[in-house]
Amino acid sequence: MIPLAQPVPLEAEAVAPLRPFATVTALHDAMLAVVARAPDKTVTEFLNRHPDLAGPSARKDPLTAHSAREQAGAGLDRLTAEETARLAAYNARYRANFGFPFIICALRHTKDAIFAEFERRVANEAAEERRAALAEVIRITALRLVTKVSGPGMPKVHGELTTHLLDVAQGRPAAGVQIELYAVSADGSADLVATAISGENGRTPAPLIAGRPIPNGTYELRFSLGAYVSGQTGSAFLQMVPVQFTTTEPEGHYHIPLLFTPWSYSIYRGS
Amino acid sequence: MIPLAQPVPLEAEAVAPLRPFATVTALHDAMLAVVARAPDKTVTEFLNRHPDLAGPSARKDPLTAHSAREQAGAGLDRLTAEETARLAAYNARYRANFGFPFIICALRHTKDAIFAEFERRVANEAAEERRAALAEVIRITALRLVTKVSGPGMPKVHGELTTHLLDVAQGRPAAGVQIELYAVSADGSADLVATAISGENGRTPAPLIAGRPIPNGTYELRFSLGAYVSGQTGSAFLQMVPVQFTTTEPEGHYHIPLLFTPWSYSIYRGS
Amino acid sequence: MIPLAQPVPLEAEAVAPLRPFATVTALHDAMLAVVARAPDKTVTEFLNRHPDLAGPSARKDPLTAHSAREQAGAGLDRLTAEETARLAAYNARYRANFGFPFIICALRHTKDAIFAEFERRVANEAAEERRAALAEVIRITALRLVTKVSGPGMPKVHGELTTHLLDVAQGRPAAGVQIELYAVSADGSADLVATAISGENGRTPAPLIAGRPIPNGTYELRFSLGAYVSGQTGSAFLQMVPVQFTTTEPEGHYHIPLLFTPWSYSIYRGS
Amino acid sequence: MIPLAQPVPLEAEAVAPLRPFATVTALHDAMLAVVARAPDKTVTEFLNRHPDLAGPSARKDPLTAHSAREQAGAGLDRLTAEETARLAAYNARYRANFGFPFIICALRHTKDAIFAEFERRVANEAAEERRAALAEVIRITALRLVTKVSGPGMPKVHGELTTHLLDVAQGRPAAGVQIELYAVSADGSADLVATAISGENGRTPAPLIAGRPIPNGTYELRFSLGAYVSGQTGSAFLQMVPVQFTTTEPEGHYHIPLLFTPWSYSIYRGS
Repeated sequence: MIPLAQPVPLEAEAVAPLRPFATVTALHDAMLAVVARAPDKTVTEFLNRHPDLAGPSARKDPLTAHSAREQAGAGLDRLTAEETARLAAYNARYRANFGFPFIICALRHTKDAIFAEFERRVANEAAEERRAALAEVIRITALRLVTKVSGPGMPKVHGELTTHLLDVAQGRPAAGVQIELYAVSADGSADLVATAISGENGRTPAPLIAGRPIPNGTYELRFSLGAYVSGQTGSAFLQMVPVQFTTTEPEGHYHIPLLFTPWSYSIYRGS
Repeated sequence: MIPLAQPVPLEAEAVAPLRPFATVTALHDAMLAVVARAPDKTVTEFLNRHPDLAGPSARKDPLTAHSAREQAGAGLDRLTAEETARLAAYNARYRANFGFPFIICALRHTKDAIFAEFERRVANEAAEERRAALAEVIRITALRLVTKVSGPGMPKVHGELTTHLLDVAQGRPAAGVQIELYAVSADGSADLVATAISGENGRTPAPLIAGRPIPNGTYELRFSLGAYVSGQTGSAFLQMVPVQFTTTEPEGHYHIPLLFTPWSYSIYRGS
Repeated sequence: MIPLAQPVPLEAEAVAPLRPFATVTALHDAMLAVVARAPDKTVTEFLNRHPDLAGPSARKDPLTAHSAREQAGAGLDRLTAEETARLAAYNARYRANFGFPFIICALRHTKDAIFAEFERRVANEAAEERRAALAEVIRITALRLVTKVSGPGMPKVHGELTTHLLDVAQGRPAAGVQIELYAVSADGSADLVATAISGENGRTPAPLIAGRPIPNGTYELRFSLGAYVSGQTGSAFLQMVPVQFTTTEPEGHYHIPLLFTPWSYSIYRGS
Repeated sequence: MIPLAQPVPLEAEAVAPLRPFATVTALHDAMLAVVARAPDKTVTEFLNRHPDLAGPSARKDPLTAHSAREQAGAGLDRLTAEETARLAAYNARYRANFGFPFIICALRHTKDAIFAEFERRVANEAAEERRAALAEVIRITALRLVTKVSGPGMPKVHGELTTHLLDVAQGRPAAGVQIELYAVSADGSADLVATAISGENGRTPAPLIAGRPIPNGTYELRFSLGAYVSGQTGSAFLQMVPVQFTTTEPEGHYHIPLLFTPWSYSIYRGS
């Protein structure tokens, strides 16, 4: 959401004289140091250059491509009328409290998590919320930075979500099982995030999420065991195994194996 | 679905001279023996006294109270227009093939399972399907019989569905966990069957299903672990554990324990 | 270890005038109250009427039948020379510290646990150890009481150790599996406590331990799965499943099920 | 056991004119093809150049360094008098039946497994056993070959045994746990094979077995959880987790993770 096309002197330009940097993280730290040293007024101006979080219908000025992509990823381009109204009310209350727009790293949250954070943060003390807003800016710039530069010491900005299917009745990986990952909302809706079929090693050809943060939120993995299990044994007991879990570490590795037989299964957060 | 109010001589009346019976099962067997010895034509007449399986809108004559209760239990009183039409088409095709209406023990099947059975059985050979229809009559009469007589040797006509919650991180039963049991359909709809809260022993005060057959079908148990787990550890990883399974033994005991920690769980068909 | 044949007025005789008691626990409480009210000197005399804990070779006076049975149960009748010497040294040190012999409810401890308790308690403060000794007397008298009287309100003095075998590859209990329970010592020796074969319901005909306390100690359950598993699948991976655990609740219920497939298993403390 | 220092023309020398070979496996195949084409009498002479399997006390001629190392690995240099006598009896019976010594790839079997194979194979038909003996020669030469040549297409002659510790009560790998691997015999003896401490990722720094076949046999992994678990929770229920398993794939990968809490654990053959 930081309009890098029109950077304030707080950021990229301000650190230019310090080049070169030994690592990408050092570059990022230098950018953040500029912000940290800036007077309050400058920071407020800086935060005010960010767009409001809003549905397209409520937006007057177009977003930068970056911001549009980020907000769309969190589903903010597909808000219901009720959600649009709720967001507008939060925005008004937030600006009245703090004097700048609500900033959140949308790539690190599902829509439900953004609403929950909005509700939580709007009640913060002013100083606390100022720190919270800057912490989000750090996350946003780090994510943008890794798309623009590469080199040693890249900051850790991506998470990974993987699975592994083991048929423990046969003592071997389970191949050919359809796997779907959904982001699920409190209202019961489910958005498909990824789909894959397990290979000979019981793993998916690629992680279900990789190369980006895992948005904080609730997910459901669905393992369609029916065909595999009834082909092995004729048992129809387990057709589809849904596994719901809530993530809170966008840069973490969530490895969630499924060990199963035709009559039982276990899941766990592995490593 | 057997209109006991107007019994054909095949059943209750025919066995009256044989009284008394040592066990209820012996009574039931005697009734079935009468049917087994009857000439084909009599059996066809007998089968023809059963009502069609149909939604209320498609029905001309009122059902007996028994039949109404049985068909309602399977959700046949809440059919969509599409389902009503599908059922009518099956009925027409079935009668044309076999010369009697489709008979199924509705208490032993969910709506989805009834449709699946209809589709499967309509393709049977005539002799095979005649046996299938009489097998259903046996199930229906046994279930009606146990509501009318009691005594030694009751036939086994009821199933049981139970669960048990164990917090294996603490090595003890998990009390106070909300549990819901739904019957789920292929179209994604879910009908609440039972709800309960686990007690100090990790079990529900009563079985989730008892005193009736477990209708063949697909179910989802939902264990709301969130409050329990976050109260113990602060972990938000597991909020709700959904467990889907398909049953095929209406008179069986399905014991489905959940062993869990804040980061893992196992389920299995126990005993 | 309390020589009831020569009761001091602290116990049974002293409570005779109070009869009858509503419950057995009330009787036991009354007996203990007499001890609690007695002057220190009387209590010391009372504690001194207990025999030393010792191997037979080190004993001058014969034990009462009760004490002999209790000490034998803990393996104190089969001490090595090294253990006999160690016990004698502990006894001397303990008497010097406290002025009475070391009293422990032998039925609630394995030999290893008795040695560990001796070592721990000999370092206690005098007042603390006096309370510890009386607590053991309470345990000893409660256990003797339930062999002499019965009626409502029996004190809880017995534990229970049970298991349950589930073949989760087949979704049913595992019958015909040989099970052995050993008490294991730190020196690697193992004493057979119980043996059983699982029945059709996957349970043993009787609990592995019942009708007595479970002595604090370390145990090993050995499930001989080999014949069962290779008969089902030809797999030889699991032949014998040893499960070691340490108990600390002599009056508790330890239910330790084994869920297995030919290639995996789980155990847990159940309920 | 093939005395490469004095090769018969069946092997290395016979294939020299065919050089170069595209892969090591192709070289090995060429060597085996020479044996396969050789007349029966030559093969018998070839098999007869192998030493008897025997304890050192029963041996007249010294073994080559290769054979000595192989037989020692299986524990054949530490036989009891009873075992030495048993081996001698088997050898006499085997030679009488087949006219050549018993050949087995000792690196692929524990001592117990060698005795079991000896007993099984001595009852074979002559033609069947001739094939069995040559199959062992193939295994032996493949293992020797990989120590002498390297290049593309190495034959798969090594297995791997690994583990992984997951604390599923905390949802993370368990570091600092002592792990021991023993080869266990039917007579109850246990030989330490490997020992390791789990790292931050819950794995051992190196596989417990690698760079050699996993000898067919029975093993016990011992996980000393006591310190880890009681440090986390104070529970003493699980001190040491023994896991016994029997292997039959010397070139396979046995991955045997342990998922545990202070009150439960699971193991399985993973991948």
